[in-house]
Amino acid sequence: MPEEGGITEFEGLRVVAVAGGVGGAKMAAGLEGVSGGEGLSVVVNTADDFELWGLHISPDVDTVMYTLAGLANPETGWGIRSETFAALEMISAYGEKPWFRLGDRDFATHILRTERLRSGESLTGVTASLGAALGVRSRVLPMTDAPVATVIETPEGKLNFQDYFVGRGQRDEVIGVEFLGMGEARPTREVLKAVREAEAIVLCPSNPVVSVGPVLELAGMREAISGLRAPKVAVSPIVGGRALKGPAGKMLASLGHEASAAGVARMYAGLVDGFVVDHADAGGRREIESLGLEVLVTDAVMKDEGDRVRLGREVLEFAVGLSGRAG
Amino acid sequence: MPEEGGITEFEGLRVVAVAGGVGGAKMAAGLEGVSGGEGLSVVVNTADDFELWGLHISPDVDTVMYTLAGLANPETGWGIRSETFAALEMISAYGEKPWFRLGDRDFATHILRTERLRSGESLTGVTASLGAALGVRSRVLPMTDAPVATVIETPEGKLNFQDYFVGRGQRDEVIGVEFLGMGEARPTREVLKAVREAEAIVLCPSNPVVSVGPVLELAGMREAISGLRAPKVAVSPIVGGRALKGPAGKMLASLGHEASAAGVARMYAGLVDGFVVDHADAGGRREIESLGLEVLVTDAVMKDEGDRVRLGREVLEFAVGLSGRAG
Repeated sequence: MPEEGGITEFEGLRVVAVAGGVGGAKMAAGLEGVSGGEGLSVVVNTADDFELWGLHISPDVDTVMYTLAGLANPETGWGIRSETFAALEMISAYGEKPWFRLGDRDFATHILRTERLRSGESLTGVTASLGAALGVRSRVLPMTDAPVATVIETPEGKLNFQDYFVGRGQRDEVIGVEFLGMGEARPTREVLKAVREAEAIVLCPSNPVVSVGPVLELAGMREAISGLRAPKVAVSPIVGGRALKGPAGKMLASLGHEASAAGVARMYAGLVDGFVVDHADAGGRREIESLGLEVLVTDAVMKDEGDRVRLGREVLEFAVGLSGRAG
Repeated sequence: MPEEGGITEFEGLRVVAVAGGVGGAKMAAGLEGVSGGEGLSVVVNTADDFELWGLHISPDVDTVMYTLAGLANPETGWGIRSETFAALEMISAYGEKPWFRLGDRDFATHILRTERLRSGESLTGVTASLGAALGVRSRVLPMTDAPVATVIETPEGKLNFQDYFVGRGQRDEVIGVEFLGMGEARPTREVLKAVREAEAIVLCPSNPVVSVGPVLELAGMREAISGLRAPKVAVSPIVGGRALKGPAGKMLASLGHEASAAGVARMYAGLVDGFVVDHADAGGRREIESLGLEVLVTDAVMKDEGDRVRLGREVLEFAVGLSGRAG
């Protein structure tokens, strides 16, 4: 969804955005708005994919796809706008617990994805064809075609990610995070090619542990990114000591990180060249700079489409401005 | 859905109804209304089951189940009342042709059925649990748990049944009908037990070729029914030379049968003891009697729930009245 006059010097810039769900999707939409999307590849976390009622659900891929297609529910950031829930009501009538809110249109996505995966298509291929049908201009790239499953360790025991995240409303203390299947999973050829050809890398304001984390943990990904001459920047998902969305704040703290913009910067230090924080976190600037990172302080909260594109532009300007340094 | 005062002398009578889609479902509902359903087993054609978008669809089983649950769309006889089609619209947005009208609530049925079949449950088991959840009191028994697929031979070539029936709107001339898998399929244990214990058998007013036909073609079914001492009756799906619903009339004619109540009676002669025709077909009475069948002439068109229960009562009275003769 390009803004009037939004596509200018960044048109066609080859950008790789690494994204989880809602925050990543908004950032991706901003980057698309300012670059036109032709050169944009969004590498999306799939470690929270799961199966429900026999259907393959890819929550982060769908959030990114729906957002870039202009279909996302503006209230929640996930799901589809003006969605209805008749199928889920009927599933409840059959005695199933409707703990994961799948809407009727959303079901269509999962039905077709599941059918095509079963017929042998890759998640990458399915995502490309579904996205194209919805008019998505950027490339939405699942990080891997292999199954990876996030397991959250809590004082109550291990939980599947969606049980923790949706089923139990993120109320459990997180004492560990495990990615089952990570040892065997590989980034796709499409992801590696996009990274190799990137003129800028943006780690979106997504949870650094369970959203961006799995992407960077894939064999060879950290090396592929850090070996690039292109500038690499990250946008803080923590503003004023709190996650904009989701449990990142609490999770960082309980895992021994600092629940602050600087805490996230420390996790990405050595990998990225620049770090974007909100005005609320300007006080951490020196600390982040001491990690060897350039810092951009701006309004990092995306409340509407205008915010997304503005932030997208600022992030790309910041990244491109680092190019001299990055080489 | 019992009518006020409807359950009387037939309460608990062990009836086996053999049914296809809409006509069979209405007859089954009438039989349930007059018998209470406790003793009613509806043996349902599954030869038009098929897979769509990876989901297992059992059109006749669902029509019977929805009808007995009081959920059927009264306009069409199939599908669910007040249904919405958001998922199908989204499936169309993804570029798929929405030739088979699956509603949102209906999708829930196919999703859960497919999941449970894949997990190893039988179609019989899945149907029992789905029906129980919807409050269906009768037993809805798929004729077999094995795959059987109806293929329609036309001058244009062979068509899968649903392509012929829904996709092409029954416009093709039918020159042959084949049931793939019939050789390996067996009636379920539940079907054979219901038939063995039946106090009356009713062949519902469904298409004798593609609905009741497959049930009777299953190995051992014809013998199991004809060997019974219990009375067996059929209700004509042809009234005044035309099928009440669907392509039975045209299909019978092109396959060399007579497209009349008497023509159907001839197909069931030797198997059933009695035949129910509409007043419109009273003229064929002598011809049908000459086949060795008792005839009940009544109003055989079920326009509303009252009609169904009235016809259900008349059919059971007719059948029970034949008991002396049947032994």
